[in-house]
Amino acid sequence: MDLIQRYKNYIDCLNAREVERLGDHVAEDAVHNGRSIGLIGYRAMLRGNYRDIPDLKFCIDIVVANDATVGSRLRFDCRPAASFLGIPVNGRRVIFHENVFYLYQDGKIATVWSVIDPMEISSQL
Amino acid sequence: MDLIQRYKNYIDCLNAREVERLGDHVAEDAVHNGRSIGLIGYRAMLRGNYRDIPDLKFCIDIVVANDATVGSRLRFDCRPAASFLGIPVNGRRVIFHENVFYLYQDGKIATVWSVIDPMEISSQL
Repeated sequence: MDLIQRYKNYIDCLNAREVERLGDHVAEDAVHNGRSIGLIGYRAMLRGNYRDIPDLKFCIDIVVANDATVGSRLRFDCRPAASFLGIPVNGRRVIFHENVFYLYQDGKIATVWSVIDPMEISSQL
Repeated sequence: MDLIQRYKNYIDCLNAREVERLGDHVAEDAVHNGRSIGLIGYRAMLRGNYRDIPDLKFCIDIVVANDATVGSRLRFDCRPAASFLGIPVNGRRVIFHENVFYLYQDGKIATVWSVIDPMEISSQL
C-alpha cells in the first residue's frame, strides 16, 4: 500500500472516530509538535478534539508524499462548541486549515508537525 | 530538473535576496493564501519580510513533492526588528516554523498555502 493510501486510511479512522483502532496508524511512541505524547496521548488528544468540536470532520485539501513523509493540508468546516485555540467560538461556524507533516516509521505515524493559524479563525468571528 | 531541486533553487533565491530574479520561480499571477498578489505583490511581500526581519533566512526542515506540488516545513531562527504577526518581538531572537504548500504550474509557483502559528513565537517572549 502506498503512503498516501495509508494516510487516507488514517483520516478515515479519525472521521469514523475509531480511536480504539488508532494503533493501526500511529506509533506507540508518537511525538506531536515536539511532545512525546505516545499513542495514549494521541488518542486523548483526539477525544478532546471530538469533545470540543462535536461536528469535527477531517477533509484533505492537498496531500503529497514520498516513501516516509506525508504533507497534508486539511480543511475543517465546523462549529467548535466553546473555545478553540483560545478563541471563544461558542458554536459559530468557522472554516480553518491545518498544514501538517507526518514522518512515518514502520508504516505508522511517528512524528507530527502541525500548524493551525488561529487568526484564520478569529477573523471569521 | 525535479521539483524538489526547483524548489531549493527558489529558497536559494530568497536567501540571496535576489528579488529581481523572483520571476524565474513565481508565476506572474501567483496567489498567496487566497489573495491574487501576483509576482509584483509577491516581491513586495518578500521585501517587507526582509525589512521586518533583517537577519531572515529560510531553512528547509522537511520537503516532500510530487510532480506539481511541494510541501515544506521551513524553520526560521531570527530577530524580527519590531512587531511580527502582531507580536512585539522587538529584536529578540525567536525560532518559528512555516508549514507551506506550493502548487506549481509550468515550472513556477502559482498557488501558495502558508501557515505560521503566532503562538509558537509569543510563547518564547
